[in-house]
Amino acid sequence: MKRWNIVLTGFGTVGKQIARLLQERKDRYRQLYQADVRLVGVARSIGGLYDPHGLAEEGLNAFAQEKKAAASAWNAEAWLAKTEADILIEAGPSDVQTGGASLGFIRQALTKGMHAIAVSKGALVVDYSGLSALAKEQGVQLKISGATAAALPTIDLFTYNLAGCEIRHVEGIFTGTTNFVLTSMMEEGISSEEAIRRAQAMGIAEPDPTYDIEGFDTASKLTILANAAFAAPIKLSDIPRASVREVTPEQIAEWKQSGRVPKLVGTIRPTADGIQAAVELKAVEASHPFARVKGTTKAIRVETDVMGDLMVVGGKSDPVAAAAAALKDLEHILSK
Amino acid sequence: MKRWNIVLTGFGTVGKQIARLLQERKDRYRQLYQADVRLVGVARSIGGLYDPHGLAEEGLNAFAQEKKAAASAWNAEAWLAKTEADILIEAGPSDVQTGGASLGFIRQALTKGMHAIAVSKGALVVDYSGLSALAKEQGVQLKISGATAAALPTIDLFTYNLAGCEIRHVEGIFTGTTNFVLTSMMEEGISSEEAIRRAQAMGIAEPDPTYDIEGFDTASKLTILANAAFAAPIKLSDIPRASVREVTPEQIAEWKQSGRVPKLVGTIRPTADGIQAAVELKAVEASHPFARVKGTTKAIRVETDVMGDLMVVGGKSDPVAAAAAALKDLEHILSK
Repeated sequence: MKRWNIVLTGFGTVGKQIARLLQERKDRYRQLYQADVRLVGVARSIGGLYDPHGLAEEGLNAFAQEKKAAASAWNAEAWLAKTEADILIEAGPSDVQTGGASLGFIRQALTKGMHAIAVSKGALVVDYSGLSALAKEQGVQLKISGATAAALPTIDLFTYNLAGCEIRHVEGIFTGTTNFVLTSMMEEGISSEEAIRRAQAMGIAEPDPTYDIEGFDTASKLTILANAAFAAPIKLSDIPRASVREVTPEQIAEWKQSGRVPKLVGTIRPTADGIQAAVELKAVEASHPFARVKGTTKAIRVETDVMGDLMVVGGKSDPVAAAAAALKDLEHILSK
Repeated sequence: MKRWNIVLTGFGTVGKQIARLLQERKDRYRQLYQADVRLVGVARSIGGLYDPHGLAEEGLNAFAQEKKAAASAWNAEAWLAKTEADILIEAGPSDVQTGGASLGFIRQALTKGMHAIAVSKGALVVDYSGLSALAKEQGVQLKISGATAAALPTIDLFTYNLAGCEIRHVEGIFTGTTNFVLTSMMEEGISSEEAIRRAQAMGIAEPDPTYDIEGFDTASKLTILANAAFAAPIKLSDIPRASVREVTPEQIAEWKQSGRVPKLVGTIRPTADGIQAAVELKAVEASHPFARVKGTTKAIRVETDVMGDLMVVGGKSDPVAAAAAALKDLEHILSK
C-alpha cells in the first residue's frame, strides 16, 4: 500500500467538497489503486492546518469556522514546504491577471516534486507553459480538469479520448452562466440585465457577474486549453471576447423570428498562422447541435481528421462536480 | 528511447489501416513518448510475417495480396511466440459464440506478458473476465476501445472521464447500422427490408446483416462494457434483444403521428439485484437527446451521482476510425 499525502490550498465551497469526497473515497483508493490517500494539510487565507497522519473531520470543521488570521507567523510557503506532500490540490481564489497566491503554491509544489491538480484557473491562465515545463522537468504531473469546465470533459478529450487524432476545430459552450442568461432571454423575453439578476438570485451568477458575462470565463478556459492541448502560446489578452450584456431584446426577437438561437461560443482553430481562439456571440441555426443546449448546460464539439466529430454535452456545474473533477485528476495520477 | 514491438493479428480493412497509421505516426510516438514503435509481425488466416527489425511496406503489401496458405507448417501459436512482442493488436474476425482464433491470440499474448489491444469483440464477449484477470496477474494491460464503439468513447468514460463517479444509468445507440435503418424508415417511409438493402448497397450493413440488425452487435458491446466497467458477470445470452427487422411501416407511421422516434437502445443499469443490461427498441420523445442522433451516428448517455449527466455523440464508423481507436489505446499504454 503506497501512502499519498495530499495538501489542499483554498477551503471555500469547492475545497470543502474535495475534503469530504477524499474522506468518502478512502476505501475506493485502497482497493483500486492500493493507495493510502490522506489529506495532511489545508490552507486558506487566514492560515494553514497540518497533520502528518491526516487531518480529522473535527479539526477541518473548526478550521472552516475560524474568522481571523491565526498568529502573525502564518507563512504559506513555509507551511507548504513543511507538509512534504505528494500532491497539491489548488482550489483557492482565481486571479486571471496575476495568478495570485495559486501561482505561487503550484510553482512551489512542482519545484518540490509534488504533482499538482489545479481547480482555479488564474495560475494556469497566467503561466500554463511555465508550470507545464516545470512539471515535465521534475517528472511530475500538472492536471487541469477542474479549471477547464470541470465535469464536462475538455482537456481529457484532446489528451486521452482522441489521442493520436489531429484536432481541426473546437467549439464549446464553456460558461454555464452566460448560457443560462441567453436561454432565459430567449425563452422568457426578458432583458439581459433582468436575466443576470435572476441568475444571481439563483446563485448561478456571481455578485459581480462581469467575469462570466463579458466572456472572460470562456476566454480563460480557451487560454488554458490552447496552451495545454495545442502548445499554443496564447494569452488571455489575445482572445477577442463578446459580452452577453450587450444582447438586446430586439436582437432576441429577430433571432426568434429567423429560427436561430444565440450562444456564447468559444472556438479554437488551428490555422496556417497558428492557433486562433475567440469568444463569439453566435446565432446558430435551430439544427445546430448547440441550439438544444439550454440553461446552465455546457457542451464541446471537436472535429478530428480520422475519428470524425465528437460532441459532449452535460456535466453538472456545482461545487461537488468541480471537486469530483479534481478527484478524477487525482485518480489519473494514482493509476500511473 | 524505449523500443516497443507490436504484432497485429487480422489484416483485413481495419488491420491494414492500423499498419498504415502505425507507420504514419512513428515520429509522433518518438516525440511524445520517447517510444520507438515497430510493427514486427502481422498474421492473417493464411500465415504470418515476422521481422524483428520491423516490417517494411512492400512486404506488407505483398502479404496482403497472397491468396493461398503458405507452407503447411504455418503455426499461429509458434509464430506469435517467436515474435516476442510487447503489444498484441487483435483485429481478426469476431466470433461472439466461441471467441475464435482471437481468444487464443489474446490469451497467449497476455500469458507471455504482452499488453493486448482488442479490436474484434468475440474474445471479450466470450471471456472478458478471464482475460482481464490474466492481464492483472501478469501486470499488463488489456485495452478494448476498438471493440466497444471505437471512435465513440464508451469504456473511456467509465474508467477515465468519470473516474470516481458512481454510474447510475447508461443508455446508448451503439450500432450505426440499425440507427441508419431506423432513420431511413422514418425519413423515407420504406420497409425494414428495403432499408437494410440500402444499407448493404452503401457498405453500411454486412452481406449477412443479422448480427447488427437483430441486436447482437449492441448486446455484444453491452456484454463487454458490463464486464469491464461494472465487473458484472453478464453473458451475451443473458441480454434480451430486439430486432429492427420486425419494425413495420404501420408502427413507423404511428410513431411519426405521435412525434416519437424509434431507436435501438442498449442500456446498463445497476439495480438491487445486480447489473441489468438490455437491447430495446424504444420510441423516444422528440425532446429526448437521442431523437436527433440520425443515420449511422452513435451516442452514449451516462447518469452519475456527482457529475450529473453526460452525453457523447459522434465518432466516425469506418475502418480508419476503428484503427484510430486501437491506436488511442496504444498511446494510453505508451504513456504509462
